[in-house]
Amino acid sequence: MAGVSEVNKKVLDRLMATYNDSHDHSGVSGERLAARLAQLAAIGLTEEGGSQRIGFSPEERAAKELVKQWMNEAGLEVREDGAGNVIGRFTAQQDHLPVVMSGSHVDSVPNGGHFDGTLGVLAALEVAQAWKETGYRPDAPYEVVIFSDEEGARFNGGLTGSRAMMGEVNLEKQQQLKDINGDSFQSVIERDGLTVEQFMAAKRDPAEIAAFVEVHIEQGKTLEDAGIPVGIVNGIAGPCWLEVTFRGQAGHAGNTPMNQRFDALAAASQFILQVESLPKRISSTAVGTVGKIQVHPGGINVIPGEVKVYVDLRDIKRETRDQLIDAVQKEAHHIAQQRRLQVELSETLRVEPVPIYENMQQTVRTAVEALGIPPLFLPSGAGHDAMVLGRHVPVAMLFVQSKEGISHNPNEWSELNDCVQAVHVLKHLLEQLVTEEHC
Amino acid sequence: MAGVSEVNKKVLDRLMATYNDSHDHSGVSGERLAARLAQLAAIGLTEEGGSQRIGFSPEERAAKELVKQWMNEAGLEVREDGAGNVIGRFTAQQDHLPVVMSGSHVDSVPNGGHFDGTLGVLAALEVAQAWKETGYRPDAPYEVVIFSDEEGARFNGGLTGSRAMMGEVNLEKQQQLKDINGDSFQSVIERDGLTVEQFMAAKRDPAEIAAFVEVHIEQGKTLEDAGIPVGIVNGIAGPCWLEVTFRGQAGHAGNTPMNQRFDALAAASQFILQVESLPKRISSTAVGTVGKIQVHPGGINVIPGEVKVYVDLRDIKRETRDQLIDAVQKEAHHIAQQRRLQVELSETLRVEPVPIYENMQQTVRTAVEALGIPPLFLPSGAGHDAMVLGRHVPVAMLFVQSKEGISHNPNEWSELNDCVQAVHVLKHLLEQLVTEEHC
Repeated sequence: MAGVSEVNKKVLDRLMATYNDSHDHSGVSGERLAARLAQLAAIGLTEEGGSQRIGFSPEERAAKELVKQWMNEAGLEVREDGAGNVIGRFTAQQDHLPVVMSGSHVDSVPNGGHFDGTLGVLAALEVAQAWKETGYRPDAPYEVVIFSDEEGARFNGGLTGSRAMMGEVNLEKQQQLKDINGDSFQSVIERDGLTVEQFMAAKRDPAEIAAFVEVHIEQGKTLEDAGIPVGIVNGIAGPCWLEVTFRGQAGHAGNTPMNQRFDALAAASQFILQVESLPKRISSTAVGTVGKIQVHPGGINVIPGEVKVYVDLRDIKRETRDQLIDAVQKEAHHIAQQRRLQVELSETLRVEPVPIYENMQQTVRTAVEALGIPPLFLPSGAGHDAMVLGRHVPVAMLFVQSKEGISHNPNEWSELNDCVQAVHVLKHLLEQLVTEEHC
Repeated sequence: MAGVSEVNKKVLDRLMATYNDSHDHSGVSGERLAARLAQLAAIGLTEEGGSQRIGFSPEERAAKELVKQWMNEAGLEVREDGAGNVIGRFTAQQDHLPVVMSGSHVDSVPNGGHFDGTLGVLAALEVAQAWKETGYRPDAPYEVVIFSDEEGARFNGGLTGSRAMMGEVNLEKQQQLKDINGDSFQSVIERDGLTVEQFMAAKRDPAEIAAFVEVHIEQGKTLEDAGIPVGIVNGIAGPCWLEVTFRGQAGHAGNTPMNQRFDALAAASQFILQVESLPKRISSTAVGTVGKIQVHPGGINVIPGEVKVYVDLRDIKRETRDQLIDAVQKEAHHIAQQRRLQVELSETLRVEPVPIYENMQQTVRTAVEALGIPPLFLPSGAGHDAMVLGRHVPVAMLFVQSKEGISHNPNEWSELNDCVQAVHVLKHLLEQLVTEEHC
């Protein structure tokens, strides 16, 4: 376990090298944010220079304890719930009002990056620290949150802390989970100082929460291509996974004339091109991807007899997402019929999209424009803690420009200038949300 | 090692069950052919009911020794060359004339069928036996041949005996081969009673050979679909293998809008459809197949960054085959350019097509029509011993209807009626080829 005082000097130097300190104002400090990012980046540092802080590991725990110290420095009341979610509360003029929350997670995928999750936690913390330093007093209480085990690298699940807080955990299912070492969920969380009974007690009443805001790296290239530091998330897409199996007839590549073939890979190829072209016809936020394919028998000189295609379909609105699923399924049947092959479809995952309310999007827009940043709305294609919270309470998300869209990788990077601008937008937004009028 | 007197009763019964003995005439016996097929099918019989007689194995040797006995019964002069090729000679009125040869192989792939190779050897033998029984005397000598190790299952090579006879074996390369047990080529053939020195001496002067005719199962469905027992091969296709690698950009399936993608699998799919449609535009015998594909990174929710497509292109004429290669390569570059991806092509195999001369095809046609069979010309898409011989001497091939085109599999099957008709066509054809006038 890395000592809490260690700093990842490489990350710190790179962050500071291009920083323009004109962004330091209103109590927000780029240098402090950089130093904290670099300290977290020293915990679970991998040989390749990445972060490895698996959910419920000693490294995630070390990161939580370090952030708790900073929460204390920022004057927050720190507590930890039964699921290991760390909560630092900025008490308010009217502390009985529903709380406004912001945060993310500090766990990572194996050999991940230094921004995914940690930036969201530290941005939320930086706002609290700025408020303390400038003597700002919110009307409603504000909480900085670290959710446990967002990535789910250990149990192939994830969003564990946020699901526990929203009462979405099924204890029986959760207790059946085993990690890669064969250790049970219970033994893993017990090693982290938690218990199963406390875990279920992490559930909070959604009525106590006014809103949740998450700052996160984009993990895409839209902001970089547009040259914009911070983007406004307009919805969180829910993925639907289909397995589409085309069954034709295997045959010798040399002995089967072209007009006597029932080539399952040719059918699959026609289908893959449809998965590529259909989303654009349905909405600007819809996406369709085939990332995996299995070809049988798979010999160079054998016509494929059976091909399984794995399809990922997403959109931020349920209606258009479902339209896309429908259109893709129809196309699979159409191609099979046209080519006289068999086709079989099965749905292996369907997560509902989570809306971000129009009035919330407009509040975020105001905050973005107040910083002189052109408003750019974009969907969140991946699931985040905000997706879980958004099923129960109003949420907002800010995306920060990601270099080349690289993520879950030691090369994941965001410029400090962009990170600090995100803190300012978040601060502006939170100051709207914690005023009595808004509550 | 199975005893030589064993019979695969299942094969024998199935062959005889539908046999129409009106095909027994002119010295040809369906029952004898069936009995011999069933005796060979007992050697190397697998649990799944297939044949396993790997090149230079005790099973291939047992099959050769059994056929030698039958060659003796048919009055042939039997010898074996240094490569283990078995040659049974029907001496002629003018024994100095170039020889007419027919035959195939008795080795098999692991768990293969009972007709691939063996039918060609036994059909050639049946003609000799019929000649003996009817007192027919050819002008030119006739040889029934068993070529060693056609399938090449042991050394991942094949066509070994025919290449040795045609002087195509490179001793140095051949001696570097190791089989799956790590045994060298030399030690394997020595166990079969052969030596490396004798092996190279198997080379014959092509001028001594007037023609070679091979009867083989079609391993395709063209004859079955047409309801025709025996087809006329109009050329032996040479395969060309290309590896085409499309390089785009990997990215998160949820966070990359459709218009910002460089999806290597979508490009590959477009290419696969071109490999399917181009052959028809070039010739009726050209074929193009993608039987294998590798997608990286291969996650369901990751846009493929790199895809490798394995292409098999064939035609019986070099000119059109090369046109096809050219068109496919151009299309790969065109698609990459259009989609702004990288593409890399490499050719891993190019075997030249082997022509079957027009006058030879017409001689075969006459023989087929003499049996009242409608002439159906079709390409041989796979390589056979006739492909090797055809690079040096005139060749002909007859295809026999294959059930569902299944081959290299215990379910490989041809009806005895069709096999016997092939013997009659072969006999008619050989009687043309061995007449002084033709020589």
